[in-house]
Amino acid sequence: MIYNRVALIGLGLIASSMAHAMRRDGLAGEITGTARSAETREIARELGFCDHIFETAAETVKDADLIVLAVPVGAMEAVAKEIAPHLAPGATVTDVGSVKGAVIEAVQPQIPEGVHFVPGHPLAGTEHSGPRSGFAELFDNRWNILTPTEDTDPVAVAKLRSLWEGMGANVDEMDPDHHDLVLSVTSHCPHLIAYTMVGVADDLRRVTDSEVIKYSAAGFRDFTRIAASDPTMWRDVFLTNKDATLEILGRFTEELFALQRAIRTGDGDHLHAYFTRTRAIRRGIIEAGQDTDEPNFGRGKTR
Amino acid sequence: MIYNRVALIGLGLIASSMAHAMRRDGLAGEITGTARSAETREIARELGFCDHIFETAAETVKDADLIVLAVPVGAMEAVAKEIAPHLAPGATVTDVGSVKGAVIEAVQPQIPEGVHFVPGHPLAGTEHSGPRSGFAELFDNRWNILTPTEDTDPVAVAKLRSLWEGMGANVDEMDPDHHDLVLSVTSHCPHLIAYTMVGVADDLRRVTDSEVIKYSAAGFRDFTRIAASDPTMWRDVFLTNKDATLEILGRFTEELFALQRAIRTGDGDHLHAYFTRTRAIRRGIIEAGQDTDEPNFGRGKTR
Repeated sequence: MIYNRVALIGLGLIASSMAHAMRRDGLAGEITGTARSAETREIARELGFCDHIFETAAETVKDADLIVLAVPVGAMEAVAKEIAPHLAPGATVTDVGSVKGAVIEAVQPQIPEGVHFVPGHPLAGTEHSGPRSGFAELFDNRWNILTPTEDTDPVAVAKLRSLWEGMGANVDEMDPDHHDLVLSVTSHCPHLIAYTMVGVADDLRRVTDSEVIKYSAAGFRDFTRIAASDPTMWRDVFLTNKDATLEILGRFTEELFALQRAIRTGDGDHLHAYFTRTRAIRRGIIEAGQDTDEPNFGRGKTR
Repeated sequence: MIYNRVALIGLGLIASSMAHAMRRDGLAGEITGTARSAETREIARELGFCDHIFETAAETVKDADLIVLAVPVGAMEAVAKEIAPHLAPGATVTDVGSVKGAVIEAVQPQIPEGVHFVPGHPLAGTEHSGPRSGFAELFDNRWNILTPTEDTDPVAVAKLRSLWEGMGANVDEMDPDHHDLVLSVTSHCPHLIAYTMVGVADDLRRVTDSEVIKYSAAGFRDFTRIAASDPTMWRDVFLTNKDATLEILGRFTEELFALQRAIRTGDGDHLHAYFTRTRAIRRGIIEAGQDTDEPNFGRGKTR
């Protein structure tokens, strides 16, 4: 047991998966939880992954030694203000937001003296959301990036690190701004692009009836999975990681136009060289253990 | 047994998977094969998924009642010219190219009187290529789109259809130009976009060392899988499906700029509405049976 009482604010995919994982590995003495919507609280009660479900964040954090802010990035400030007067001295507050600079700006000023704030971002998720979507294995072999500042208590960081390691994750530390740039490339911009492509297909669907869905091939199928992620979470990500997103989108558009021009002018050498270069990066990801290399993607009988 | 002797021209992912599937289901009396590279032929011999491997396409097609052109789209015309004098009367030639208009233009004029050409495109694949990448289940519950013209013999089409159904695929027929537009949306443009985003990340990797790979999150990881596909095949797809690709890329850029502007101006409502709309299309794909809805994507222990 690492924490006596863990309070989950927000009961979506990440928080419910944390609850399942903490229970599986006996990492928390007690787990409390709350969510804004009565329906979510009711589902959480029914599923029973928390010991107590409260109507307010204030009640939920009472006597907790770890508080997890698992709400959309745009809601972090209000939640932090609400719980601040009720936090126990010595407690640690962490978050699971996909943007770190903006969350630190919103939350840190609300945290009272004697309470530790350790911002974090588990790089794990599915396209599903809500309390029913959680499962204990979500964090297995995934990274959680903690972005403590110079003032953050190293003991609080170490304890939080061992919780995440207990839930199966690998933990690393990074500067918040650097986190936001790297994630813009590896996650935020790919999501925006997938949303865009699926939107284009949806427009065309009115012309081609259900064919776009029926004949959804590999490329598009993966895009729709990405583009099915929670709209509120992603709206907040783009609004709060604006600078890095616009910077990377600018680079993306430049490169896309160069490829588009190669198609228009029939420059096959340019296309071939580009596609050969990108193929190599995939090898790196498999070697880094961030995806599997099964020939059939886990479908079919050879698995 | 549907065909007495099937000749595979090209021995990559698709052809080797066809050989495995035909053998599994006893669909071909004999399977012959050839590939341009001596190394590929050697590997195919070693793996043994064909009964005979020949050095030339001319020898390979001798006495075959089905000939499968499984080479990159840009190589179809030369192969068709090479085999034409050696085709048996009454034989059927098909192909597995991702573009249909350009392949018909290149191949149909080479086909001699009394031989049937039935263009086709199996919507199946992985990011792997070459003779070692094939597996019998590749086509299970995937679509194969045949694009016969008015002159195509319906008996030859029906026979080819039963071969694909025997290998586990669903078969549909479509107008070639319409095929090329639909596939541009569901496959060709998503691939180009994924290639582009991975290229951007690769540039940035020089700045951030291995972080882009190490912290490769869901969005980017799926993109790298797409962007690892065979460079020659994809170069040919874009060069031969130029009009539809440029049309869809134009729409894509328009929509991306609108989203980019919403981010810049902080228009959260626009983003949220867009992301909500795209989420719905995912549901359609799962209902159409083109992907699974497992909460952990087949990773982890709950599978």
